[in-house]
Amino acid sequence: MRIAFQGEPGAYSEAAARLFALDAEVLPCRSFEDVFAAVSDGRASRGILPMENSIGGSIHRNYDLLVEHELPIIGEVELQVEHCLLARPGTRLGDLQAVYSHPQALAQCEEYLRRLTGVEIVAVYDTAGGAKLVAEGTRPGAGALASRRAAEIFGLEVLEEAVQDYASNVTRFVLIARSPDPKTEANKTSLVFALKSTPGALFRALSCFALRDINLTKLESRPIRGRPWEYMFYADVDIARQAPACGRAITQLGEFAQWVRTLGSYRAWDAPPA
Amino acid sequence: MRIAFQGEPGAYSEAAARLFALDAEVLPCRSFEDVFAAVSDGRASRGILPMENSIGGSIHRNYDLLVEHELPIIGEVELQVEHCLLARPGTRLGDLQAVYSHPQALAQCEEYLRRLTGVEIVAVYDTAGGAKLVAEGTRPGAGALASRRAAEIFGLEVLEEAVQDYASNVTRFVLIARSPDPKTEANKTSLVFALKSTPGALFRALSCFALRDINLTKLESRPIRGRPWEYMFYADVDIARQAPACGRAITQLGEFAQWVRTLGSYRAWDAPPA
Repeated sequence: MRIAFQGEPGAYSEAAARLFALDAEVLPCRSFEDVFAAVSDGRASRGILPMENSIGGSIHRNYDLLVEHELPIIGEVELQVEHCLLARPGTRLGDLQAVYSHPQALAQCEEYLRRLTGVEIVAVYDTAGGAKLVAEGTRPGAGALASRRAAEIFGLEVLEEAVQDYASNVTRFVLIARSPDPKTEANKTSLVFALKSTPGALFRALSCFALRDINLTKLESRPIRGRPWEYMFYADVDIARQAPACGRAITQLGEFAQWVRTLGSYRAWDAPPA
Repeated sequence: MRIAFQGEPGAYSEAAARLFALDAEVLPCRSFEDVFAAVSDGRASRGILPMENSIGGSIHRNYDLLVEHELPIIGEVELQVEHCLLARPGTRLGDLQAVYSHPQALAQCEEYLRRLTGVEIVAVYDTAGGAKLVAEGTRPGAGALASRRAAEIFGLEVLEEAVQDYASNVTRFVLIARSPDPKTEANKTSLVFALKSTPGALFRALSCFALRDINLTKLESRPIRGRPWEYMFYADVDIARQAPACGRAITQLGEFAQWVRTLGSYRAWDAPPA
């Protein structure tokens, strides 16, 4: 199995890929689009994508890409994200002149970074890429916000750990493939659907699940730009798409919605019994 | 009227404040917490907060602060956000060595910035603050991603305009105050409530609105960290809190939810007729 991920070795996406398959080969990619391309054209058998962070919320870009492409979600895992402040061995906190990281990680450590007065904050395309830059040592007094694993890979020291503003910082990742894995015992299904903004539209849509005792674990509305008063919804339900009740619920949802797309039916690790 | 906002003069929050009151006095603040503090202690009569962006989604930090504080939302406005690449007069695109902006703006222009090869991307606390740094001219070949207005304030030139990755980039801002404005003809109410994750819990909660023909314009679930399988919901309904049907809906919602908080009932500019 080869898993494509966005970023450099040591990125959180790589760590999430290892949760699925400890000894998987991995394929670093420049962008999320490249992860989809690598899976589509067979350079990788799987791709891993962050979908939601407990501080930052949903990653809309990846929902858009899942809707655009035809690659199903085949698994889900949650990763506890602990940002560490890394620097070349021997560097002290007082020596720091610049800190490199991904904009999302910088935003998650905003309060911490404010306390490092006089330090320049530099945005790079992924956290491990920042660690790599620091390891190359072209800039004296440089640090990176990245994972402990990135420190090991690039030979950096951890100056301080878990520096994010909220102690609990969890990212939900999904695994995509060219086709569903028939051996999987799915316990979760992800859907995207569109509704006109009329009173009761969402209530009718949710009746499809509620009247069949199907539990929603996520629901989020998103305005469809360019189509005022139409909304797209992300919904996760903790039932397999193959279950007869789920099939009937989605058929009925098709009556009420402008359109419905199943993004995948898969096994969520650490999910509660349905 | 004095409106507190996060950032430097020329920030998008300041532009949003001007949409509410063209000639309002404004009070720049270091953080969103400071905006709440300025309104609480009377240094400002109003505060303005970004709540949701069409690319990045909800700004959870401000929802958290609205729940923590007792300052009601008294108005809402949408601002079209157009990031421009700014530099000191005479600078050409080929001279650029670094671009300064807020992490959120950098994320919204990620594809554009990737094409500027060899340019360092530097994160600062707000877009206008980045423009100010560039204007100070300590770094040669520096540019900023900020508003056209920031260019005017700091005497910079617009090298390129509307450089965000999606043409449509809209941010929804709310105005907060110490107490509701009794003169306002409200047409919208924002609520936060918590539900246990059981089948049908959200369906029952939404019945309070649907059965009274009250339209939802936003609904988003958010896991409550530290309380597995409890969810917090953000909901906007396009009716005034004072309307008898809305009062009855919220009373009924109180029966089904762990807790309910009304964040405010206010006038949304450009809202469709209810």
